[in-house]
Amino acid sequence: MREVAIIGVGMIKWGELWEKSLRDLAVEAALNCLDDATVDRVDAITVGAMSSGLFNAQEHLASVVSDYLGKRFTPAIRVESACASGGLAVKTAYMEVASGLSEYALAIGVEKMTDVDGGEATFALATAADQDYEAFHGITFPGLYAMMANAHMHKYGTTLEQLSQVAVKNHYNGSMNPHAQFPMKVTLEQVMTSTMVADPIRLLHCSPITDGAAAVLLTTEEEAKKLNKPYAVITGIGHATDTIALCQRKDILKLAVVEESAQRALKMAGKTIRDIDFAEVHDCFTIAEIMVMEALGMVEPGQGGPATMNGLTALDGDFPINPSGGLKSKGHPVGATGVAQIVEAVSQLRGKAGQRQIKNARTALTQNMGGSGASSIVHILEARQ
Amino acid sequence: MREVAIIGVGMIKWGELWEKSLRDLAVEAALNCLDDATVDRVDAITVGAMSSGLFNAQEHLASVVSDYLGKRFTPAIRVESACASGGLAVKTAYMEVASGLSEYALAIGVEKMTDVDGGEATFALATAADQDYEAFHGITFPGLYAMMANAHMHKYGTTLEQLSQVAVKNHYNGSMNPHAQFPMKVTLEQVMTSTMVADPIRLLHCSPITDGAAAVLLTTEEEAKKLNKPYAVITGIGHATDTIALCQRKDILKLAVVEESAQRALKMAGKTIRDIDFAEVHDCFTIAEIMVMEALGMVEPGQGGPATMNGLTALDGDFPINPSGGLKSKGHPVGATGVAQIVEAVSQLRGKAGQRQIKNARTALTQNMGGSGASSIVHILEARQ
Repeated sequence: MREVAIIGVGMIKWGELWEKSLRDLAVEAALNCLDDATVDRVDAITVGAMSSGLFNAQEHLASVVSDYLGKRFTPAIRVESACASGGLAVKTAYMEVASGLSEYALAIGVEKMTDVDGGEATFALATAADQDYEAFHGITFPGLYAMMANAHMHKYGTTLEQLSQVAVKNHYNGSMNPHAQFPMKVTLEQVMTSTMVADPIRLLHCSPITDGAAAVLLTTEEEAKKLNKPYAVITGIGHATDTIALCQRKDILKLAVVEESAQRALKMAGKTIRDIDFAEVHDCFTIAEIMVMEALGMVEPGQGGPATMNGLTALDGDFPINPSGGLKSKGHPVGATGVAQIVEAVSQLRGKAGQRQIKNARTALTQNMGGSGASSIVHILEARQ
Repeated sequence: MREVAIIGVGMIKWGELWEKSLRDLAVEAALNCLDDATVDRVDAITVGAMSSGLFNAQEHLASVVSDYLGKRFTPAIRVESACASGGLAVKTAYMEVASGLSEYALAIGVEKMTDVDGGEATFALATAADQDYEAFHGITFPGLYAMMANAHMHKYGTTLEQLSQVAVKNHYNGSMNPHAQFPMKVTLEQVMTSTMVADPIRLLHCSPITDGAAAVLLTTEEEAKKLNKPYAVITGIGHATDTIALCQRKDILKLAVVEESAQRALKMAGKTIRDIDFAEVHDCFTIAEIMVMEALGMVEPGQGGPATMNGLTALDGDFPINPSGGLKSKGHPVGATGVAQIVEAVSQLRGKAGQRQIKNARTALTQNMGGSGASSIVHILEARQ
C-alpha cells in the first residue's frame, strides 16, 4: 500500500452563513486548501455531506462541487455516514491515492443546515437514527444522548458539573480559533443553568446547527516530500459500524464502535493510545466526549467525567482533547466535521495552530461518529519533516 | 495495484415492492450475492443510494444495511452520485480491495422509490439536476432529456421511430430477465402512441419508478482463483464529471462525460471500443441510449438511431446493448442500477444469463450516468477461467 500524506488544509469561518450557498461553502474551503498546499492538481474529489437532499434539495453534490471548483471532468464522489460523512470523505480520498487510481485527491466536507427551519433541521438530523424503529416514533438526537447521559450518571455517578466542564474547556479552546462559530468562553454556571433541551442535556451541552465546510489535500508521501515543507502522514485508519438503533446495543454506556474503530486504527499505525499526543473527537453532546474518552481507552469506564474535571483533556493537560474547540464551540456542520478534525490535527502537527498550539505535537488521533454510535472512523496522523 | 475480481452477484425481482422495506431490499440482494459467491467474509460494505433521505427519511443507510445484514462492526459507507450511485459503490469497493484495506468488499445498490407519491418522487429525482439554476425553476428529467431529444432530431434527423426502437429492443431483452420490473414485449406502435410525457418523450421512452437492489462481491484475483469457478476481473474504471447544469455544456448533443469516462476505462484496460463484446448502458430515456452509443465511439455522432434500427445493438447484433433489458424494462431503482449493470455483465461473462445469453461474451463494458450527464462511471470487465 502506498503511504498517503496530507499536504494542504482549508477552512472557512463557520456560522449562520446566509450570504453563501451550499456550493460556495465547499468551493471556498477547497480553494483555501489548494492555496495552502500550493498545488492545483486534483485527480479526484470526495465530498462528505450528510443530507444535502433534505437540507438543500441538492443530491449529486460532488458533481456540483467539481463543476463550481472549475474542475470539470474530475472524478467526484459524495460519501455519507450521517455525522461521520466527513471522516469517510478523507478515508475515500485515502483509498483513491493508496489504490493508485489517483495521485492527488481532495476531500471536502460540507453542510449548509440553515436553509431550513429548526424543526426541519431536527427532522433531517433524526434520519441518522433508525427511521423505522427510532425516528418514526419521535425520538431525536438530544433525546438519544440524554438517555445515555442519564444512564451514565446513574451507573458511574457522572455529574452535571462534569458534563458541563467539557463545554467550558471546549469553548475556551474555541475562543482561540478564528474559524469557530461560537468562539466565546463560557462558565460552568452558564452551562449548568442554560435552557433545558432533554434532561439532563441543556443547550450549552449541545453542538449547534452550523453552515460550514473544510477541505484537505492528499497525495503520496513521495510527492509530499518534494514540497519541502512540513506535512502529515495518515498511518492508521479504523472504520466500524454498530447497530443503527441505540436500543439494540448490549450496553448503551459503551461506545463499542469507537473502541473498535480506534483499536483498528492504532493497530494499523503500530501504536497504542499512550503514543497519542492529542485528539479531536466527536463531542456532538458533552456526554459523547466523556464516553469517547472511555471507549478510546484513555481512562477507565466511568472516569471520563472526573478526568475532565482534573484537567487531563485541557489544552495544557496530559492528553488534550478538541484543541479546535470541538463540535461544541467550533460548530457542527455535520458533513464538514470529520474533515475539520483532520484540518485541526494537521495544523497542530505542522505547528500552525496559533494561540491554541499544543507543544511537541507529533502524533494525533481524530474520531468522527455517526448517529448514536452506529458508525465511527478514526484516523492516526503523524508529523513529518 | 492489486487485481480485483468479482466472485458473486445478487439480484432480487424488481417492481413496486410494497411488502418490503428499504433495508429488506438491500439485505435480500446481499444475501443472494453471498450465496452465489459461496463466501461469507465481508471486510467492507459500500452502499449506492441516491436519496434514501428524500425517499425514505433514512440517511446513515450503510450502517442500517450492515446491521440488518448481521455484519456488526463491518466498515460500511454510502456513496452517492445521483443515478450513478451504484456504479460508484462498485468503484469504492474496488478501492477498498485495490488499496489493501480490505480483502473482501461487498457493493450494494438500493433504492425504494414508491414510499412517496409520484410528485414527491419527481421532486427527489430532480435534486440530481442543478437545484439553484435548473430544478428550482421547475425543470425535471423528462424535460431535460426531451430538450436533448429534440435537438438530436433537429440536427441529425433522428426519428420518433428510432427513439422507440430502443424501447422495443430493451423490452424484448427484458422479457427474458426474471428480475425485470416490466418483462413484457412492446411493439413500435405501442411505444410511439404511448402517453406523452415531455414532447417528444412518451411514457414508453422512459425508465420507470422502481423499488430494487443488487449486490456484487469483490476480492483479489488471487482469492478468486481459489474458488475454482468462473469469475470476472475489473480491468478498467473510468469516472468523470461534467457541468451539473445542462445549459452550461458547450454541446448538449455530446455526452462528453461518457466519452471521457469510457476513454479512461478503456485506456486503463488497454482496450478499444472494438474489443468490447457487449455493453450495459444508462438508458434512463431511450434518447440516452442513442447518445451513449455515440459517446462511446460505437457509431459516429447522429448514427445511434439508424444503427439501432439496423439491429447493431440487438441481442444477436454485432454489439448487443442492454441484454438485461436495461433501465427501460428491468426498472431503474436509481442507486441500484449501476450495481445491477455489473450483475448482468458478470452473469453474461460467466455464461449464466439464461435465455438472453450472448455467445462468446468475454469482455464487457458498463456505463452508469448521473443526472443529464454530470457524472458517468464506466467499468470494463473480463471473463476468467
